[in-house]
Amino acid sequence: MKNRVITISREFGSGGRTIGKLTAEALGIPCYDQETITQLMAENGFSEEYVQEYGEYYTQGWINSFLGRTNGPTKQDQLWMFQRKTVIELAEKGPCVFVGRCADYILRDTADCLTTFIHADMDKRAERIVRVYGEQDILPKERLSMKDKRRAAYYQYYTDMRWGDVRNYHVAMDSGVLGIERCAEMLAKLF
Amino acid sequence: MKNRVITISREFGSGGRTIGKLTAEALGIPCYDQETITQLMAENGFSEEYVQEYGEYYTQGWINSFLGRTNGPTKQDQLWMFQRKTVIELAEKGPCVFVGRCADYILRDTADCLTTFIHADMDKRAERIVRVYGEQDILPKERLSMKDKRRAAYYQYYTDMRWGDVRNYHVAMDSGVLGIERCAEMLAKLF
Repeated sequence: MKNRVITISREFGSGGRTIGKLTAEALGIPCYDQETITQLMAENGFSEEYVQEYGEYYTQGWINSFLGRTNGPTKQDQLWMFQRKTVIELAEKGPCVFVGRCADYILRDTADCLTTFIHADMDKRAERIVRVYGEQDILPKERLSMKDKRRAAYYQYYTDMRWGDVRNYHVAMDSGVLGIERCAEMLAKLF
Repeated sequence: MKNRVITISREFGSGGRTIGKLTAEALGIPCYDQETITQLMAENGFSEEYVQEYGEYYTQGWINSFLGRTNGPTKQDQLWMFQRKTVIELAEKGPCVFVGRCADYILRDTADCLTTFIHADMDKRAERIVRVYGEQDILPKERLSMKDKRRAAYYQYYTDMRWGDVRNYHVAMDSGVLGIERCAEMLAKLF
């Protein structure tokens, strides 16, 4: 019998992580997000900074990436393999929520997944990241655009599927219009 | 005060029309689908067959389509304009559900829309269209593929937006996995 799992893919700043936490709380099951995974990867010898920078964002510059692979897997590939193993092991423990980390793809054959995608329009996300993470040197919209592009590239590279393609998800929701709490309610209800 | 409307875009065979009807029933509001619109267009002088064939499916063959426009709007353009006007007028009457007809785009400025997209995988849709519409000379999967392509082309041509792009919809659901009844329940709840 496969464990039931909710996977949440999300645009940067859409509140996907908060939706994951609220959903997991409502269901009384654990939520594994960037923080949890980073900690587990740190126990496997990866620095926290490296995991945060490369754990679901593709390395910038295709030349680096290409040349890096002529002698076998890159450091990012090794991180991917560790993360993949960790996601599978966590899902084997029992029902849970995963935020990001391509969990929808990784668990497609080993768990009974409800795959979801959370998005919101640029203005709402820009307002939110400044409120949640504070101002940075780079403009909010540029930051969002860069983060989304690198997440999409990472997903595409390791899964060979298109990130954000409506057909890859059982449910997709606009958190900017529906609201973060309501998205979490719907997911808990659908689970 | 804008009227509240649910718009349902859907892949052929995903049960979007049934979801629209069930949602409208649950909310006690009218549902306008292909049948209703075809009837209203027939009253404006378009044959039922023409509306069913070209009311939301793009004309095949770009040469016909291009040459047809050298002397002004084609017959399909005229149908689009009539349908557009009809959708706006119906939405002005009160809260309702629209299935197809690019209602999400048409009503974006005049109604308070919950825009949705219903999809399902090819196997489930193929099984469903044979069960609901019966066998035809053309294989179910070819029929689906052709219908989807023509719907996408129609939507793209008249709205300049990409049909099925997750970011264009407040909610997208896989009816093959979630089930038609549950999709309708979620929409009624979100409304």
